[in-house]
Order: sequence, then structure tokens, then C-alpha cells
Amino acid sequence: MLDAIDKNLLKAVAGLDGIPKGAFNIRKNGNLLSRAVSENINIEPNEDGTGIVVTVKPGVINESVHIPVILNQAGLHDVVYNTFIIGEGADVTIVAGCGIHCSGNRPEGHEGIHEFRVGKNATIRYQEKHVATGEGKGKRSLNPTTKVYLDENAVVEMELTQIGGVDEAKRVNEAELGAGSSLFVTERILTEGHQIAISENNIILKGHHSKTNLVSRSVIKENSKQDFYANVEARAKSFGHIECDAIIMGNGMNETVPALRALHPDAELTHEASIGKIANDQLIKLMSLGLTYDEAVDRIIRGFLK
Amino acid sequence: MLDAIDKNLLKAVAGLDGIPKGAFNIRKNGNLLSRAVSENINIEPNEDGTGIVVTVKPGVINESVHIPVILNQAGLHDVVYNTFIIGEGADVTIVAGCGIHCSGNRPEGHEGIHEFRVGKNATIRYQEKHVATGEGKGKRSLNPTTKVYLDENAVVEMELTQIGGVDEAKRVNEAELGAGSSLFVTERILTEGHQIAISENNIILKGHHSKTNLVSRSVIKENSKQDFYANVEARAKSFGHIECDAIIMGNGMNETVPALRALHPDAELTHEASIGKIANDQLIKLMSLGLTYDEAVDRIIRGFLK
Repeated sequence: MLDAIDKNLLKAVAGLDGIPKGAFNIRKNGNLLSRAVSENINIEPNEDGTGIVVTVKPGVINESVHIPVILNQAGLHDVVYNTFIIGEGADVTIVAGCGIHCSGNRPEGHEGIHEFRVGKNATIRYQEKHVATGEGKGKRSLNPTTKVYLDENAVVEMELTQIGGVDEAKRVNEAELGAGSSLFVTERILTEGHQIAISENNIILKGHHSKTNLVSRSVIKENSKQDFYANVEARAKSFGHIECDAIIMGNGMNETVPALRALHPDAELTHEASIGKIANDQLIKLMSLGLTYDEAVDRIIRGFLK
Repeated sequence: MLDAIDKNLLKAVAGLDGIPKGAFNIRKNGNLLSRAVSENINIEPNEDGTGIVVTVKPGVINESVHIPVILNQAGLHDVVYNTFIIGEGADVTIVAGCGIHCSGNRPEGHEGIHEFRVGKNATIRYQEKHVATGEGKGKRSLNPTTKVYLDENAVVEMELTQIGGVDEAKRVNEAELGAGSSLFVTERILTEGHQIAISENNIILKGHHSKTNLVSRSVIKENSKQDFYANVEARAKSFGHIECDAIIMGNGMNETVPALRALHPDAELTHEASIGKIANDQLIKLMSLGLTYDEAVDRIIRGFLK
């Protein structure tokens, strides 16, 4: 069922050495490969057959859902709409991710639209990794969208990572935060060659005492380009912070456009951004410890994206 | 020639207690009130009669030009196009500013479009203050535009201040920086009541080793609104920093949208923004020293805008 390439992709995007524990749904080349549900977590096709609905019962803790997608079929552009309904007070980990292996000249792509309805006092950790491999020259595109709705006091931690090989990415993250809820997003993207990645983020602080922290870390190598747009709109007494750091290597290019909109007098919004090459003193310090230039650069990049 | 109101306005916008030393051009209600030139600084009407041309000879140092504008005529909307040609190696101070006094119900406004051509190795300090006074309910609008072209190694320091009473302001600052040139802009705006101020900034780092630092400080009282947009575009090995701080009081609203565009691999761009109410610990500290709440707020605001 899983060949060596599949296994490598699953390992890369979902940290899996085989079939995961608990609920899971593994999709390959646009079709279901394997699925398991648990007593507390149900997975079923949605009504129009365009994706799955994952339902977590209220109060469930310490469970996880794995929903990786792998693709190695030339010319396939796979689109899925997945919905996650998280019951009140639940506390679960969701591991998504998409791996593409491209061995020919035809393009391959995946678009995952993930909607999260996170109930009162519920917590989710969402991990999404994107990677593309293979010697083929077909364009690999990965366009993930997340839409997150946080009910009162919900907590969502999202780690969104694109670790290489993806030629084109258009990433969209949208969120609406209810009273007392918290959203923490960390996005890490590495591009090289002529790759292009665009990230659009739109976070609305609707409820009182809601808060968000959006961290973007970009490594932009060779002739690649990354653009980062973020809009944090505070409609209540709330707190928002955006932090964007981009390391440019080679001829990389970057646009960073954060928008802070304080539409409530008790909003507190802050932002920091830094775009540039690796600081020379960092390199010199590591090289004085015996590392070569390339090793020092590599060490810094890995630390930055960790 | 100058009545008591005129004198107060001149004092407020240009720090003048009477006729200034050196070159000056004082405009009142759309007409020339008084002008003086110096051996090194010429002022004359432009070709189409829409404003003045100020020409500073190369190498002139320690001289100043005052070009204040005052308005107290109901219903007048005054527009001027002024050009400043700064010779190589000159080092001068330019004091502009507009004071409006409104005693009736009809609107009054001024639009000053100021273009600066700053020669090689020249330095200018440009101070512009805007203020409106009077018991009238006519809308007071002040829409200043600056366009700054910096030749090699030129240095421009701009202090742009709107200290109160202005109902509507649409501020535009544009700059193109040549090799080795530096632009430092500090904008300070206070709004209250239902006032609206919009500031748009567009700075292009064209030349190698050019640098800019753009600082925006906003105090947004009562039901007023301030929006700040800044675009720093690096087309060369260059350095840019944007810093936006907004203090919200009452029901003030703010949008802050800085864009950093690194279009050259050796660009280094950074940004910091902070929007919110005055920190409570600052207030408590000052109140513990014997100040009332209002005195403490006033002290903090004055320090912030100084």
C-alpha cells in the first residue's frame, strides 16, 4: 500500500514511521488510502464528497488526528475541503501536511482548505508541513488555506511549515477570535531556486480579551521570492502582535506588509519586522568556533527555522 | 500688517516673534505678505505663479529660510506649489508651517506641495508645523505634500508636526534617495474631537548605501482617527527603518500599514510598531510622584510628542 517514496513523504510531513495511533485519514493521489476513527474522534466524508469532516467529542484530551496527503501522480491537481469540529473543552493535536513527489515534467499540486470550528475552552495544536521532492521538473504547487473560528476561551496553536521543494505556494490563513480566545501562529517557509511563496493572513480580534501572536520566519535563497501580508484587526479590547523575520540569501526578494487596525480604543497592537542578510558578526562567531562559512550559515538557518 | 492673531499663528508654526532673520516669505490668505532674500538664498515666484522657487547657492552654510503661511479668511482654500533647489554642499534650515484661524462657520484650508531638489553633499533641516485655532466651526483642512529628491550623499532631516485644531489632514511624503544619501523623517500628529489625519509615505532607496529612518508618533484623542501608511522600497544595498507609535485615548482609532519591500538582496529593512493606551505603570509612577491623573497623562503625551 505504501511504497518507499510514500513512506519518506509521510515521515517528512507528518513525522510518521508507519500507521499512526488514534484517528487518521491518509489520502494519496486524490483518493482515500487508509482511515481509522476512535471512540472520541470521528472522520467521515463531507456531504458533497469534497473532503472530510473530523469531529472531536467535547472534553476529549490527549488524543491526536493525523490527516496527511501524499501525491506522486503527474498532472494531478488535488483539492480538498476539510472541516474540523472541536467539542467544548477538548484538547487535541491535529497533524496535517502534504508531500509531493514529482518525477516527471507535468505539474502536480494540492490545495487543502481546512476549516476549524473550535468550541468553548477547547485547545488544538495544529501542525502542517509541506514538502516536495523528486527529480522531475513539473511545477509543484501547494496552496493551503486555513479558516479558524475560536469560540470563548478557545486556544489554537498553529505551526505551518514549508520545508523546501515547493515551486509555488499561495498560503491563506484566516481567523476570527471570540472572547478570551488565543491564537498563536508560527509560519516557517524556506524557498530557493525560482520558487515563489505568498502568505496572506487575516486575523480578526472580535471578542474581548482575545489575543493573537503571529510569527513569520522566512529564508529566501537564490532567486526565490517570498511575500508576507498580515492584517490584524482589533474590534474589541484585545491584544495582537506580529513578528516577521526574513533572511535573504543570494538574490532573494521579499515584501512584508503588516497592517495593524485598532478599531477599538482598548486594542493593543504591536509589530516587529526585520529583513536582511545574516549578520556578519553571527557568522564570524560561529566560524571562530571552527565551522566553515557554509556550516555556519547552515547552523544559523536551522536555528532560525526551528 | 500683522494683527494679534497673525502673530500668535506665526509664533506657533514658525517660532517667530516678528520678522525673521535671513531669507523669508510670509503668505497670508493666499497672497504675499512680506518677502526678503539674502545674498545666498533667492526667493521668487515660479513661472506659472502658483508658488515660489527658493534657490540656495552651493556651499552656503548656517543660513535659514522661513516660509510660513497664515490663513484667517472664511471660505478660502489656498494651494501653493513651492520648489526648493539646494546647491551642492549647502547646509541650511528651512522653516515652513501653516496656521489657520477660523472664526466662522465656513471651511478654510491650505495645501502646500513642497518639492526639494537637494544637491550632492547638501544638508537640509526642514521643519513644518501645522496648527488651527479659533472658535469658528468651519472645517479646517491642511493637506501637505513633500517630494524630496536626494542627490549623492545629501542629508535631509524633516520634522513634520500637526499640533492640534486641524479637522482634516491628508499628508503625503515622497522621497527618492541617491547613493549615500540619508533621509530622517519624524512625524508627530495630535488629533482630538472628530478630527481625521491620514499620512502616506513612500520612500524609495534607489542609490547604494542610502538610508532612511521614518518615525511616526501619533496621539489620538476622543473620537479622532489617524491612519498611517508607509512604503519603504529598497532597490539597492541600503538600510531602512520605520517606527510607528500611536497612543490611543478615549475612543481614538488607528490603522498602521507599513510595507517593507526588499527588491535588492543586500537591502536591510526593519520595522517596529506599537498601538495602544498609555501604559498603566507609567501613569502610576508619575502619580506616585504627586501628579494627578490628568497631569500624569499630559506629561506623558508631551514627552511622547517632543
